[in-house]
Amino acid sequence: MQDCTELRPGERIDDLQRGSLRIIQNERLFRFGTDAVLLSDFALIKSRARVMDLGTGTGVIALLVAARHPDARIEAVELQPYFAELAQRNVDLNALDDRIFVHEMDMRLAAQKLGYGRMDQVICNPPYFEQGSSLLPESENKLLSRMDASIGIDEIARIAFALLKSGGRFSVVFPAQRLCDLLFAMQNARLAPKRIRTVHATLQHAPKLVLVDAVKQGGSQLHWLPPLILKNPDGTNTPEWERIYGE
Amino acid sequence: MQDCTELRPGERIDDLQRGSLRIIQNERLFRFGTDAVLLSDFALIKSRARVMDLGTGTGVIALLVAARHPDARIEAVELQPYFAELAQRNVDLNALDDRIFVHEMDMRLAAQKLGYGRMDQVICNPPYFEQGSSLLPESENKLLSRMDASIGIDEIARIAFALLKSGGRFSVVFPAQRLCDLLFAMQNARLAPKRIRTVHATLQHAPKLVLVDAVKQGGSQLHWLPPLILKNPDGTNTPEWERIYGE
Repeated sequence: MQDCTELRPGERIDDLQRGSLRIIQNERLFRFGTDAVLLSDFALIKSRARVMDLGTGTGVIALLVAARHPDARIEAVELQPYFAELAQRNVDLNALDDRIFVHEMDMRLAAQKLGYGRMDQVICNPPYFEQGSSLLPESENKLLSRMDASIGIDEIARIAFALLKSGGRFSVVFPAQRLCDLLFAMQNARLAPKRIRTVHATLQHAPKLVLVDAVKQGGSQLHWLPPLILKNPDGTNTPEWERIYGE
Repeated sequence: MQDCTELRPGERIDDLQRGSLRIIQNERLFRFGTDAVLLSDFALIKSRARVMDLGTGTGVIALLVAARHPDARIEAVELQPYFAELAQRNVDLNALDDRIFVHEMDMRLAAQKLGYGRMDQVICNPPYFEQGSSLLPESENKLLSRMDASIGIDEIARIAFALLKSGGRFSVVFPAQRLCDLLFAMQNARLAPKRIRTVHATLQHAPKLVLVDAVKQGGSQLHWLPPLILKNPDGTNTPEWERIYGE
């Protein structure tokens, strides 16, 4: 194993503020954002779950899920060689190589290569395509793609369906203004939208993001969570956001 | 014209708390609820609009829209003879018979009888079918149907499509847990969901209701409004709810 703290140009190590987790990120390319932290909090991951993170990028979601669920086994799929290798270094840095398995591959091949109908949970922080849909300033959410931008939510939902067991869940963070695209993609892939939470910068703001999960062979009722408000009117973090970010 | 203040058994006259509007309601059957007030506030009704209220019941939405939009012309369709006649008495009581036209008919025949593609706005507070989806106590929302319960949201959306001009809007209040049914019904009827607002008893609550409108031949982006919170933590009304209810 190479020395995983050996950094490349543009890279630095950040504290994930969750136990002792650390992450190597590349500030010239993509650094993880609010979305990844929100999604790893939102997903209901059951005991001893088999989880797949589609388009893992730096591996941040896989790390957060592994830290929160010590008995989960996570397959982290990444198309781009630089990011797949960075995710692997992050796994090594945190000594999680017994529970997170990084695969450099096109997610379109994931079910064929890793097995159909075997996952309890598929997680994806997909490309948004559109600017201005993050809650974070542009500088914190560099738009250099960490994922093949040619893949849309319809195809990702079909891939998730192929990977999931019956009753398994597909969890996504997505721009609120594209909620219909997300729900229709799930529906068309025979994944039933099940839980939804809107994410708001403040109570006075419309949501910019939605967290949604869908169940393979699930029913038609949608369970709404209370709105997730990130900031108080005075600009400080809300207790809920502190809970999620600092836990 | 009969004396419109002559009441039948179970009926009483209430102040609508909006200008001088009054409404005859039947406490043994159906009294209007929060939903109607929310929907009449949510709908964006343009100047000189032609509006249709599908399943008008007591006529409350027609009255509220007429009061707020003095140049709107409203067709109020109601299947049940008792309610159609009650809606007409409410129109007469408020001297709005030059702008609200009550039609006792099956809404399935509305386009055929009143014209295809002529409405700027179709409004509907449809039957919910399921209990527990109102924000109000059961006693305030008697479930005796004010509408043919055999008609579902899919069919209502198709009827709205037939009635609307290109660019016209279909506005609905619906249980939040059935949002997917509503969005899929709109999509299948070629009405593009356009605006959405969630309605919450308090900030700590998941939404029970959603307000959604869809545009005939519209685009795919969804415009979210800030969440509508009805009550403060101390149980008093929020300013926004006061604005809507007391305006």
